Amino acid sequence: MRIAVFTDAEGAGLGLVDDDEIAVMTRDDPGAALLGLIEAGAAGLADARTQAAGAARVALGSVRLGPPVVSHQRPVICVGKNYRAHAEEFHGSGFDSTGKAAIPEHPVIFAKLGSSLIGQGAPIRSGMDPTGTVDYEGELAVVIGRRAHKVSKAAAQEVIFGYTLCNDVTSRVLQQTHNQWLIGKSLDSFCPLGPWIVPAGEVPDVTALELVTTVNGEERQRAALCDLIFDIPALIETLSATMTLYPGDIIATGTPAGVGIGFDPPRYLRPGDRVAVTVPGIGTLTNPVA
Amino acid sequence: MRIAVFTDAEGAGLGLVDDDEIAVMTRDDPGAALLGLIEAGAAGLADARTQAAGAARVALGSVRLGPPVVSHQRPVICVGKNYRAHAEEFHGSGFDSTGKAAIPEHPVIFAKLGSSLIGQGAPIRSGMDPTGTVDYEGELAVVIGRRAHKVSKAAAQEVIFGYTLCNDVTSRVLQQTHNQWLIGKSLDSFCPLGPWIVPAGEVPDVTALELVTTVNGEERQRAALCDLIFDIPALIETLSATMTLYPGDIIATGTPAGVGIGFDPPRYLRPGDRVAVTVPGIGTLTNPVA
Repeated sequence: MRIAVFTDAEGAGLGLVDDDEIAVMTRDDPGAALLGLIEAGAAGLADARTQAAGAARVALGSVRLGPPVVSHQRPVICVGKNYRAHAEEFHGSGFDSTGKAAIPEHPVIFAKLGSSLIGQGAPIRSGMDPTGTVDYEGELAVVIGRRAHKVSKAAAQEVIFGYTLCNDVTSRVLQQTHNQWLIGKSLDSFCPLGPWIVPAGEVPDVTALELVTTVNGEERQRAALCDLIFDIPALIETLSATMTLYPGDIIATGTPAGVGIGFDPPRYLRPGDRVAVTVPGIGTLTNPVA
Repeated sequence: MRIAVFTDAEGAGLGLVDDDEIAVMTRDDPGAALLGLIEAGAAGLADARTQAAGAARVALGSVRLGPPVVSHQRPVICVGKNYRAHAEEFHGSGFDSTGKAAIPEHPVIFAKLGSSLIGQGAPIRSGMDPTGTVDYEGELAVVIGRRAHKVSKAAAQEVIFGYTLCNDVTSRVLQQTHNQWLIGKSLDSFCPLGPWIVPAGEVPDVTALELVTTVNGEERQRAALCDLIFDIPALIETLSATMTLYPGDIIATGTPAGVGIGFDPPRYLRPGDRVAVTVPGIGTLTNPVA
């Protein structure tokens, strides 16, 4: 099952993607409907499947997919330096303002503002970055399914609703000069998310999957999701230890080696480029660079 | 005029505070009503004043004031190390993970998640921090009034709706060990905001005001708001250069010297303490520590 937020000539909607069609679940406030679906858990998914069988359908090619979020006001919670090889590549690039150690001892957590969210196919507006150092970061993202406070690693799977993909687009110079990363990570259009959410129950073992990022079809990042320094249960345990996570919260789990600043000279994104983040079984998030 | 979000036995509401009463503007979705009032600008404020004259009233002492925000889902945008003496005190404390320089060359921007927001009088739950290093940071906060993109310093005043107060409560150990500050700044209940919003038109010159923070009545912080390293117009110019700010966005402008880690040994907050942040002409934000 692939749960998508979309817009077409008739307006916004929430639907289930079925091959090259979308079964329309509602045309009314897709964010609220997505939250309702998330909160309804397994029973909600079963109901949605039944409802979809008889629902009106629109061609997938005729809609614009939006970021699959319950609200554009919530930030995306992100993890930095969470694959060993990337942590070393970033630390060696000269852009790492986080201190002396390449490999963090504790998860490095920051936020991308909701105002930076875009969906599948929407352009990453590289001109937003006056420093011209726009870089890609392909990531698996987790969608929280239940209110979560003090959730142990062992119980973490129970609070995961599903998975999607994130491109944690970054201005490398702004990330460095402002020290804390919010500005360098939250430029308008710098948070592609999607293309849809796949419920956790349909992904038997997410750690068995690989993440691949290409730019103009050329492979730049390839990593096994089991290589996360802090795995998904550890991230949920750490975050929920001191703050409450809510249904619909998104955690982007970090990017592997192969970002633009890993090359010498750096290979920044330029207008006309096309970035694609793929995790087989979840989908491919593709965005052009404008 | 003091614009307050409140809750009482009848439910939530938005109102105007008048001495020891609140003129009730609406009982329907105070966040949406506050956004509407912000977006209506000067004409909206004039209408509200007229409406308040004939409105039902409740005693200020009979309500609980909430954080004056349009949505609890939006994070508060915060500025670190933005008073010279505090930047030096924090840098010298051993808790500064931001690098070699005490005084930043560019604004240090981070977020506190909306899930950490509380209002006037609500308890700061110190037990949320397992490291026992809970510190206060009294701050002036700016409420954005208009969609703002690429706004120059000269035009910044036009996009300010009003002012409120923030206590940027922080776990010093979590702030340091996670390097990026989101976790150390976003513990549940660690973002007291309020007590209300004062429209910018009623604050002739905010830089002429002083900010004072007390703990159990003892003065800890006192600073002139004109001592900000990056002043409010500079912050709006920097933020809006690469991201769009929206009506209702909150920017907490940084804290002056005198935080708990500025003392040797550090004076962390403990259950039973009472923290008050005052800017005369705006108000006093008081919260007990539980």
